[in-house]
Amino acid sequence: MKLGRRDFLQQAAWAGVGATLAGSAAECKAAVFGFGSSTQTAMGMRCKPLDAVRVGVIGLGMRGPGAVQTYSNIPGAQVVALSDLIQERADRQKKWLKEKGKPDAAVYAGSEDAWKKLCESDQVNLVHVTTPWLLHTPMALYAMQCGKHVAVEVPAALTVDECWSLVETSEKTRCHCMMLENCCYGESEMFALMLCRKGVLGDLVHGEGAYLHDLRDLKFNTSGYQDMWRIKYSQAHTGNPYPMHGMGPVCQYMDINRGDRFEYLTSVSSGQFGLTQFAIDKFGKNSAEAKQAYKLGDMNTTVIKTYRGRTIMVQHNTTSPRPYSRINTISGTKGILTDYPLRVALSPKSHDWMKDEELAALKAKYIHPLWDKNGESAKKAGGHGGMDYLLLLRLSYCLQNGLPLDIDVYDTALWSSVVELSERSVLKRGGSIDVPDFTRGGWKTAEPLGIVEVR
Amino acid sequence: MKLGRRDFLQQAAWAGVGATLAGSAAECKAAVFGFGSSTQTAMGMRCKPLDAVRVGVIGLGMRGPGAVQTYSNIPGAQVVALSDLIQERADRQKKWLKEKGKPDAAVYAGSEDAWKKLCESDQVNLVHVTTPWLLHTPMALYAMQCGKHVAVEVPAALTVDECWSLVETSEKTRCHCMMLENCCYGESEMFALMLCRKGVLGDLVHGEGAYLHDLRDLKFNTSGYQDMWRIKYSQAHTGNPYPMHGMGPVCQYMDINRGDRFEYLTSVSSGQFGLTQFAIDKFGKNSAEAKQAYKLGDMNTTVIKTYRGRTIMVQHNTTSPRPYSRINTISGTKGILTDYPLRVALSPKSHDWMKDEELAALKAKYIHPLWDKNGESAKKAGGHGGMDYLLLLRLSYCLQNGLPLDIDVYDTALWSSVVELSERSVLKRGGSIDVPDFTRGGWKTAEPLGIVEVR
Repeated sequence: MKLGRRDFLQQAAWAGVGATLAGSAAECKAAVFGFGSSTQTAMGMRCKPLDAVRVGVIGLGMRGPGAVQTYSNIPGAQVVALSDLIQERADRQKKWLKEKGKPDAAVYAGSEDAWKKLCESDQVNLVHVTTPWLLHTPMALYAMQCGKHVAVEVPAALTVDECWSLVETSEKTRCHCMMLENCCYGESEMFALMLCRKGVLGDLVHGEGAYLHDLRDLKFNTSGYQDMWRIKYSQAHTGNPYPMHGMGPVCQYMDINRGDRFEYLTSVSSGQFGLTQFAIDKFGKNSAEAKQAYKLGDMNTTVIKTYRGRTIMVQHNTTSPRPYSRINTISGTKGILTDYPLRVALSPKSHDWMKDEELAALKAKYIHPLWDKNGESAKKAGGHGGMDYLLLLRLSYCLQNGLPLDIDVYDTALWSSVVELSERSVLKRGGSIDVPDFTRGGWKTAEPLGIVEVR
Repeated sequence: MKLGRRDFLQQAAWAGVGATLAGSAAECKAAVFGFGSSTQTAMGMRCKPLDAVRVGVIGLGMRGPGAVQTYSNIPGAQVVALSDLIQERADRQKKWLKEKGKPDAAVYAGSEDAWKKLCESDQVNLVHVTTPWLLHTPMALYAMQCGKHVAVEVPAALTVDECWSLVETSEKTRCHCMMLENCCYGESEMFALMLCRKGVLGDLVHGEGAYLHDLRDLKFNTSGYQDMWRIKYSQAHTGNPYPMHGMGPVCQYMDINRGDRFEYLTSVSSGQFGLTQFAIDKFGKNSAEAKQAYKLGDMNTTVIKTYRGRTIMVQHNTTSPRPYSRINTISGTKGILTDYPLRVALSPKSHDWMKDEELAALKAKYIHPLWDKNGESAKKAGGHGGMDYLLLLRLSYCLQNGLPLDIDVYDTALWSSVVELSERSVLKRGGSIDVPDFTRGGWKTAEPLGIVEVR
């Protein structure tokens, strides 16, 4: 992109900020539509505290309305702008806010470019993206280029190039880019994080996470995903398109990007059986749905090796009939936690799972402070058992206090990169693929995430 | 090997048998210490029925005594010979048999070659091998060369070359070679096999099996494995040295070698943490045990792809503190079964696991006939919950009735080959490895194992 004079001046100013404020609070406030080759890291980046979090939500189909409603319960946060391709969806949320007695929200809707106006609005300082997958990165990039922090739904990116563009843009604009991995805030996941941080499980060796969720009905539902984008993705891609719900929490347990990093991965997908069988049963064997080819294998299993010798097994299956699970297993030299249902075994009694009362005592002892303080509000607010609420509560708190985010742009990029890397490995018959180091060596010296601070 | 005249005549005689009795009962009766390049398949091989199964057991340390005692409960089976490196171990079993009022058993013991005499004995028609892993294949080969059927403990072989030698020797000698994969006879596994055979789970898509068994204490126990062979193996090898307890049953669910076959696999191991930490805690950080290097990673995860597009995830971990599990998962287009604890979910109610009473009804409806008829005797006989008894009951029945074995030499070879193939993949950073077709194309036309016949 060609730089205008205004852009050039802004870029120069940020270079100055970078030089003088390294390690101090960066500002994220102005538009950048072109920038140079600054490589200042955004690891541990602290930005100028926001007096209030003024959110613009893009995408008000499936996940957006829940975000609007959750923000309405978060201290210091306010939804000030709404955008959707479809005017009526935005208007409905505007009306909902009004009925709740909240300040008026601006609406940018009804056209394919309407969301850009939201990003450009002076009223917004956090752009929240809940659109179809393919739009996540373009919208996140534009928001940061407009000087806005961005919170983007999973997966934040679909290709390694997109992941790098998120990293580079966050580094240069000094705007946060956080993937909205709500499962990192689940009650069991935060309990597991505490056990890991407190050394209860010893040195960590192996973790497992998954997204096992039968979505066949929803994928074939014409009033589900906008323009049926999700089943179209299943027609075009294999691998694991959605690895982070199970993998993200395990990365936090293992301090990935903060003392360890992914070295390589290997990925194998089964054939596709589920969608076709479902289509035959629902629409008949001569239906377009039954005759359509789908590339996405029913079960993808990816195994990741880290530099410190740990392994992570990650699975994805949205097309087989089975109960929901994210697996959520973490195993160390002193014990193991697994989930669905939640179980813990600790040395020297690790040959058996703990009895219910022992587990209850352990949960009480190692409850995460975020859950301890806000668990009741979280469960009342709802949203996947309260984790949506805690995710936005914590994001808002960090932005208002100028803290680094729990899931930074490097986590966002790394976790998203598995989308393309797993597909490449599957297409190589499970051949192993090196994982890029988005931190450019920063993982070696970064501080562990630690117990996240409490609000 | 150079052929003597006697060997040549024998070989010629077998070639004749092969030509005239193809598809009929083969004989396994004479010594072959050299043979040519016959490639007659042993798939579905039926041998001349034995009037009685006269067993010689080699290896009376850890697993052998249980086998001796189990055979004593099996109709038509008799332990006629005993062998061990250590005379006293063999004598102890001889005495036990005598006390039980059983006929006298010959003892071949006290030297490294004593077991060969057992193989050569005219009194024996089945050699049962329960020695350290490294001895399994040499003993199995010699037994077949002596014209004896052989039942060999897991893993039957440690290298792909050994696997081929078992296949070729069984084909040429027309003697059975069955790996003693007792877990194929577990109550849950045989229930799962029934669900698969009866189509209750639909088309099979993905399976999982494992050997997750904390053996650290036993590995470091000087009076455990003979000459501590198992920890020595951990010092020398990585990969999955023991894949079949979980994988074998899944192969039977999926009719591997009988309509489908392994295409390739990929395998990743974590680093080794558990043995060293255990040695430090038990022997001190300056002990030889703590300073020793161990190649075997704590957690190995192997993913296998089949020609028909199914995947099998196989894990091995004997050095992390965690409760025992073989996972035992099988997932299809109509439902899923998993274990530890046993659960089933079936369409259209597959979003939840069945309630206890529903599961009990399903178990009653689909109980495997072998368990239905012999479950009480099996549990009374003991041995891993009765499965050891059913394994030997069924083996003896097939030999007495001239039936093909449930686990034939091709299963024995394929399942064992994962030992070397997984290690090769691990050493290639998870690179994928093609799996040999030990059936040489026979899998394409072989009949499914079906519901095993009942006795």
